[in-house]
Amino acid sequence: MTSPLDRNPTLTLPEFKLESGITLHSVDVVYKTWGALNAERNNVMVICHPFTGSADVHKWWSPLMGCGKAFDTTRFFIFCANVLGSPFGTTSPLSIDPSTGKAYGPKFPATTIRDDVRLHKMVLDHLGVTSVAVAIGGSMGGMTVLEWQLCFPGFVHRAIPIATCAKQSAWCISWGEVKRQIIWADPAFMGGHYPADRPPTYALAIARMAGLLSYRSPESYEERFGRRIQDQSASHAQHAIQLSNEEDKEYPYYETQSYLRAKGASFVGTFDANCYLHIIRKMDTHDIVRDRMPLSLPGPNSPTPDAEADAALAALLATLPPRPLVISISSDILCPPREQALLAQNIPEADLVVIDSVAGHDGFLVEHERINEAVVQYLEREFPELYSN
Amino acid sequence: MTSPLDRNPTLTLPEFKLESGITLHSVDVVYKTWGALNAERNNVMVICHPFTGSADVHKWWSPLMGCGKAFDTTRFFIFCANVLGSPFGTTSPLSIDPSTGKAYGPKFPATTIRDDVRLHKMVLDHLGVTSVAVAIGGSMGGMTVLEWQLCFPGFVHRAIPIATCAKQSAWCISWGEVKRQIIWADPAFMGGHYPADRPPTYALAIARMAGLLSYRSPESYEERFGRRIQDQSASHAQHAIQLSNEEDKEYPYYETQSYLRAKGASFVGTFDANCYLHIIRKMDTHDIVRDRMPLSLPGPNSPTPDAEADAALAALLATLPPRPLVISISSDILCPPREQALLAQNIPEADLVVIDSVAGHDGFLVEHERINEAVVQYLEREFPELYSN
Repeated sequence: MTSPLDRNPTLTLPEFKLESGITLHSVDVVYKTWGALNAERNNVMVICHPFTGSADVHKWWSPLMGCGKAFDTTRFFIFCANVLGSPFGTTSPLSIDPSTGKAYGPKFPATTIRDDVRLHKMVLDHLGVTSVAVAIGGSMGGMTVLEWQLCFPGFVHRAIPIATCAKQSAWCISWGEVKRQIIWADPAFMGGHYPADRPPTYALAIARMAGLLSYRSPESYEERFGRRIQDQSASHAQHAIQLSNEEDKEYPYYETQSYLRAKGASFVGTFDANCYLHIIRKMDTHDIVRDRMPLSLPGPNSPTPDAEADAALAALLATLPPRPLVISISSDILCPPREQALLAQNIPEADLVVIDSVAGHDGFLVEHERINEAVVQYLEREFPELYSN
Repeated sequence: MTSPLDRNPTLTLPEFKLESGITLHSVDVVYKTWGALNAERNNVMVICHPFTGSADVHKWWSPLMGCGKAFDTTRFFIFCANVLGSPFGTTSPLSIDPSTGKAYGPKFPATTIRDDVRLHKMVLDHLGVTSVAVAIGGSMGGMTVLEWQLCFPGFVHRAIPIATCAKQSAWCISWGEVKRQIIWADPAFMGGHYPADRPPTYALAIARMAGLLSYRSPESYEERFGRRIQDQSASHAQHAIQLSNEEDKEYPYYETQSYLRAKGASFVGTFDANCYLHIIRKMDTHDIVRDRMPLSLPGPNSPTPDAEADAALAALLATLPPRPLVISISSDILCPPREQALLAQNIPEADLVVIDSVAGHDGFLVEHERINEAVVQYLEREFPELYSN
């Protein structure tokens, strides 16, 4: 999904053992860095990308990059690496399985956010990084931030988890399940064994349309589109794939339909269906308590009282480094503000900033001015030595 | 979808002209009544059913029925009729088009909630009803309640709209669009021309699964399922249709997945895909201002300021009969409480009851004890003459 022209640095490891016990061979990690490691090696910022993001931070969080902004390359050595299973370069279902000489496709083994963190740590080691000043990320990126601090205690000093959660909720698992069913249902999916030139574009577009409901909020749809009607003929023609139907002609075509179809259609050229399903499964495994506290992973008919599980989570959060900056978007329906409030209540001396916005979950990308302001203020306070000049 | 054994009364009209100008011939209206019209003819209660409901109120709102409850057949003559396009008896895509001798299928013309109200009014005329004491309904039923008062001014004295809205929001139109795309994508759908014995079951199940996200709330999924894992082999076997995949076996199977699959699979035997799409389109037309105020239905690039549209809506609501009982569910993400607050702010002397519940939109069905209590209290106050014995 990247052309050779804009290829990022890649570290190739002969092998990498996943949390599941499965060993991947010849593992690529695509990453990107900005700025330079200072003499004290105390200016490392790790950016963790969300679901459909990549190491190319400028493609999805560019308003935060630049001199005087949150991602200030004159002060920080900034690092972002692509996660396992993502189509943007790191080993994924699109990669060749050395044992077969063919792409892994649906046979690509399950990975976890902890696998990503351990893999990316190897790249940091390779780059001579000995500690990280701050890790920042939204949504899945925020999950990764939390795992950085838990997988390598003491290595990441400060954390900025945004619009994220300590564990993937039943609600998020449910959204993933609906997207999975939509993709499985497409005959072009072929159980994941689709040819590279005939991917299940239609299903991927519809899954993306479903996702766009969860990424915004009722209010944002109302503000942007209301009940406005769009000229049908003009807008249908634009789509790369056919999302209209003969029946459409007899009904008003609302602007919000047009928006969803355009977004769904444009997504299919940028993402792979097996990668999409893989990352949903990865996020489903997210539970910082898993295998760390005695009460994790309740099994069938588990008698574990919820209160005990809550206490275990609170106890684990209390072990994290103090003074994170936790950011919420007030209208986030995917990772609602109470999930970040839980982080802030239990991590020592946490700052919680709730950004009042109708943007929903995507507010972590959209409300860049307010996020930038909160992050810069926080970094200046926590790292005065990096802001002294 | 009903067997001859439990057939409800049906009124057949030789023809019925829809709001669109199209005339349907030989139109059936399936309805049901409970109790008896009193001598004063002032004890009529109209119940308006939601999307997947029917005239058989006892099948979906039974906890509200009975002596001393909201639907007290010793006090009220209660009426509920099935809407156009629903699979439960009233003329729909499943009905025979007299002009072709075949089922309408996807050719069934668009209908509106106003069509339903006008059609059901004919049944009330036929039953000798000259006025309605109170109309009650949730979700689409609440939309219908509002249209009753607007289509026949003075005919319906009191209204109890629950978890509903004055106009279908962009958000709800968007959910409908995603469900429509899911169904269109199923090759078994065949543009709606599927054989009666080979309906697009898989797509309908997935659309239902998507719907179940919108009908509940993040909190309700968390409370019910959390991250609990279910025994896979046991639960997969139950489903009437295949919603699992070989890939599943390698991943934890969360209880919430099992819930969604079971609900999706069980829905397909009870509803028809063309009817499902028809009613989504019907709800999309819902806008009480449409064709009633000069500012309705903004067209492409309409310059109409939102403030003016809001003012038109407020002005129209102010013409409704006073003292409705408006009920919200606090966690409703489909028709959020602010949409009912808008009704209550603008209809004269409205009572607004917000039921604090994690049940989400489905709270109008689930929170029956608190709804029953609010409704009984309201009815006793508004209709003392019916509660004097």
